[in-house]
Amino acid sequence: MDYIKEVAKESLLAMGQTSPNPPVGALIVSSENKIIGRGHTQRIGGNHAEIEAINNATESLANSTLYTTLEPCNITGNTPPCTEAIINNKIKHVVICQKDPNPQINGNGIKILNENNITTEIVDKIEIVEYALEAYNHFMKTKTPYLTLKLAMSLDGKIATNTGKSKWISGIQSRQLVHKYRSDVDAIITGVGTVIKDNPQLNVRLENISKSNQPKKIILDTNGRIPINSQCLDSNTIIICSNINDKIEHELLNKSVTIEKIPTSNSGSLDLKYLNDILLKHKLINVFVECGPTLTSELMKLNLIQKLLIFISPKIIGGSKYVPFANINSDEMSKVFNLKKIQHSQIGKDILIKGWF
Amino acid sequence: MDYIKEVAKESLLAMGQTSPNPPVGALIVSSENKIIGRGHTQRIGGNHAEIEAINNATESLANSTLYTTLEPCNITGNTPPCTEAIINNKIKHVVICQKDPNPQINGNGIKILNENNITTEIVDKIEIVEYALEAYNHFMKTKTPYLTLKLAMSLDGKIATNTGKSKWISGIQSRQLVHKYRSDVDAIITGVGTVIKDNPQLNVRLENISKSNQPKKIILDTNGRIPINSQCLDSNTIIICSNINDKIEHELLNKSVTIEKIPTSNSGSLDLKYLNDILLKHKLINVFVECGPTLTSELMKLNLIQKLLIFISPKIIGGSKYVPFANINSDEMSKVFNLKKIQHSQIGKDILIKGWF
Repeated sequence: MDYIKEVAKESLLAMGQTSPNPPVGALIVSSENKIIGRGHTQRIGGNHAEIEAINNATESLANSTLYTTLEPCNITGNTPPCTEAIINNKIKHVVICQKDPNPQINGNGIKILNENNITTEIVDKIEIVEYALEAYNHFMKTKTPYLTLKLAMSLDGKIATNTGKSKWISGIQSRQLVHKYRSDVDAIITGVGTVIKDNPQLNVRLENISKSNQPKKIILDTNGRIPINSQCLDSNTIIICSNINDKIEHELLNKSVTIEKIPTSNSGSLDLKYLNDILLKHKLINVFVECGPTLTSELMKLNLIQKLLIFISPKIIGGSKYVPFANINSDEMSKVFNLKKIQHSQIGKDILIKGWF
Repeated sequence: MDYIKEVAKESLLAMGQTSPNPPVGALIVSSENKIIGRGHTQRIGGNHAEIEAINNATESLANSTLYTTLEPCNITGNTPPCTEAIINNKIKHVVICQKDPNPQINGNGIKILNENNITTEIVDKIEIVEYALEAYNHFMKTKTPYLTLKLAMSLDGKIATNTGKSKWISGIQSRQLVHKYRSDVDAIITGVGTVIKDNPQLNVRLENISKSNQPKKIILDTNGRIPINSQCLDSNTIIICSNINDKIEHELLNKSVTIEKIPTSNSGSLDLKYLNDILLKHKLINVFVECGPTLTSELMKLNLIQKLLIFISPKIIGGSKYVPFANINSDEMSKVFNLKKIQHSQIGKDILIKGWF
């Protein structure tokens, strides 16, 4: 059995639940190569993955190997240090997918284990672990949230027909995968224009997701134009606005919506320089962006997007009216936005391109 | 050794040289599993692949197996039937990648072989064979040339920056691959606008290509606007025009350029309904299209494009000024152009998407 892949998959179960803590998976394997415990990070204040795996263990942990996607912590936060539990339970060997970039830990967890005669090894990070930890790693490095922009477009880069119709550009498998990705993040951002046009639910529609696991819904709405009967309005919704009239504000508050006010920029629309502050205030680190070309252009210009997920459908729509980054105007090839890394895969009849800035 | 792959690779050597005949590869394997002969279709009037392989054979062909990418012909054209040579040389078994769609052959070649106690089998067609024969198959089915549109664009579907700069959107590996693809076709079509803007050579720049193997250069130039000092003008060039003044025509003829005149459409530009007639007149079946958004739109609207080759570079250019199909306006999702099949691969840092209508 591939324990690294298994522990990586375990870590996915924590995604969307733990921010600003990292979503981690842990697996305990006995000296007879039997999995005797597994667990993943619980919601803030709850157990780390290692403690979960230890608590769930079905046999004695003496001489066992612990697999964990992130270096065990050596610090007391909401919970005691994981290294302590590993030492006390006489675990023999710890396999780690990645050192913790948190400067308080970063190698110190490993050091303490070694000092207590527990051997450790760091293995090559596989793609699932990279995916689960990319938002946390970015946050640790920059102290800013990790924003992934999702788009669906035709092969010729159109997000709608000439008359604005976009249902459906991408296929059913792609749209289902978007729900899976949404379930992995802390929040979904969209613009009020999209809410007015499409009245989206902006939630995860997968069979086994509980209401408490739904990502937050963030609506960017400079002047409080959101229709009060929009499907997306509930206690899980945050409206970010500048100028909102008292009546609308009152109605939104009655629906348990959270309202956050930020200044406008010179253009009169929301000054998105303040967006990250609001996200951090709500502990939203791993964030999905699903919005129209005005907002995507604005977020790109402010370098707020770290990752692109572009679903390309095998269609040619033509024309130049509905393009994904309408308000970006690169004059020179040296001024365009370059992606550092790109990946491609087939999703039904569509192609999914992932790109990282 | 994978003889199917080997014979498929042999057929590639014939591409761009044989139209309207198919580019075929043949391989002869002895009963001791040794390759004793190989060959590919020669230029029109020359030998078919099977005859080349037989003529090049280094040992007796008795009891050997012939691999061929296309059913051996049973008809006399410029050359005698291949079936005759196969029978006379006592070849025992023939492995065929595809039946010949030519209605005069289509199974008759196989029938004659079987009647002469030569066993045959048709194997699953691999991608290389599909590629080598797709233009011929299309031509046999529709009696029209096979046009492949090549584009280089950014990930957001832009073919130039806001100021029209397109050097270079795609990477060096992609641009080299374009030369390989160009070497496989009979002709390259472009518009006079591209010639005026970029002054391209429109040829294959690969180390081991001889002058006689260069594809024809077809310039669509309604009013004879082509600058007489353009790099692409020589005896390999065909200008398709409607209204051309005598002086320019004389200068072009002096450069050994071929001039073809077709009517204009109501809009005053070349009526591209006549394009295929000109291509067929010159026996050009497998044709590459590399032109700007006006022409691509026009060719698409007339359903003249069978295949797309889109090089997507990991860049976001933004804006809506330079899009690949500017003059197509699909109002409804039901009216867009749908691709039947799509493939994706990595070329350096770019992604190449191949699509078939």
